[in-house]
Amino acid sequence: MSQPAPARSVEQRTQDTLDRLERDVDAWVATAGVEGGAPYMMPLSFLWHEGALYVSTRASNPLARNLVASGAVQLGIGTTRDVVHVAGTCEVLHDDEVTPEFGDLFARKSGFDPRKSDGPYLYFRITPVRVQAWREANELAGRDLMRDGKWLVGG
Amino acid sequence: MSQPAPARSVEQRTQDTLDRLERDVDAWVATAGVEGGAPYMMPLSFLWHEGALYVSTRASNPLARNLVASGAVQLGIGTTRDVVHVAGTCEVLHDDEVTPEFGDLFARKSGFDPRKSDGPYLYFRITPVRVQAWREANELAGRDLMRDGKWLVGG
Repeated sequence: MSQPAPARSVEQRTQDTLDRLERDVDAWVATAGVEGGAPYMMPLSFLWHEGALYVSTRASNPLARNLVASGAVQLGIGTTRDVVHVAGTCEVLHDDEVTPEFGDLFARKSGFDPRKSDGPYLYFRITPVRVQAWREANELAGRDLMRDGKWLVGG
Repeated sequence: MSQPAPARSVEQRTQDTLDRLERDVDAWVATAGVEGGAPYMMPLSFLWHEGALYVSTRASNPLARNLVASGAVQLGIGTTRDVVHVAGTCEVLHDDEVTPEFGDLFARKSGFDPRKSDGPYLYFRITPVRVQAWREANELAGRDLMRDGKWLVGG
């Protein structure tokens, strides 16, 4: 067995996490049904913009229904051995928030444009409340980068 | 933009999916709290064995508590552009099911041995009920490989 790399500092992890939020296109998005006990997860493209993550999916999708109903969401970004884990609150964007500039920004980053897609789509703003990042087991300690919506260092 | 590869046949996707279940080590595991509305997702190592996925985590982990309480789980395996998505039911293994042979098999595949880890760990058997696999948008049609616990082709 090769030794894992040394654990990164919180500063380094925060920088790596912000880089990933800026650069990565897809996240696993996990929601729960409000009836309880029913998880629903799928991969979605996201845009990181002004401290929030934006995703969009068809209004009829169970994921959209869960997001509208509960507002609680978790995202997994990166690989299972280079994890960025975000827990956040979620709100639906009002029509007047989907400006042409925002719509273009989202389409450019995510590679798809909900405005041009079949059927009604919703955009969601996910505000991170807790952010964690770790690679291997030696990084489980110190994995908290944001708590209660505040970056512990920088950000 | 480069064209995506042609959509795979259901036979090919099923074979690719079984290969991934056999070979991959980690999955994103999504659960929901029984109170409703609270998702909890984390990456875990898994063992694919005799048609089920096995995972293990500390009994005190919120994920373990959700699995014990609800039994409903979704797994994301692979990357967000080469997805295997499993929805399944989950049960805790009884002590007498964790034979030395099973324990060794799990440890060898997952790279960690819950029997030697601090604190009580639980093993879970996840029986797939629905399995889907897709790469790009052109594979969204035909993504169902298993429904109601039955592979549509082969498996």
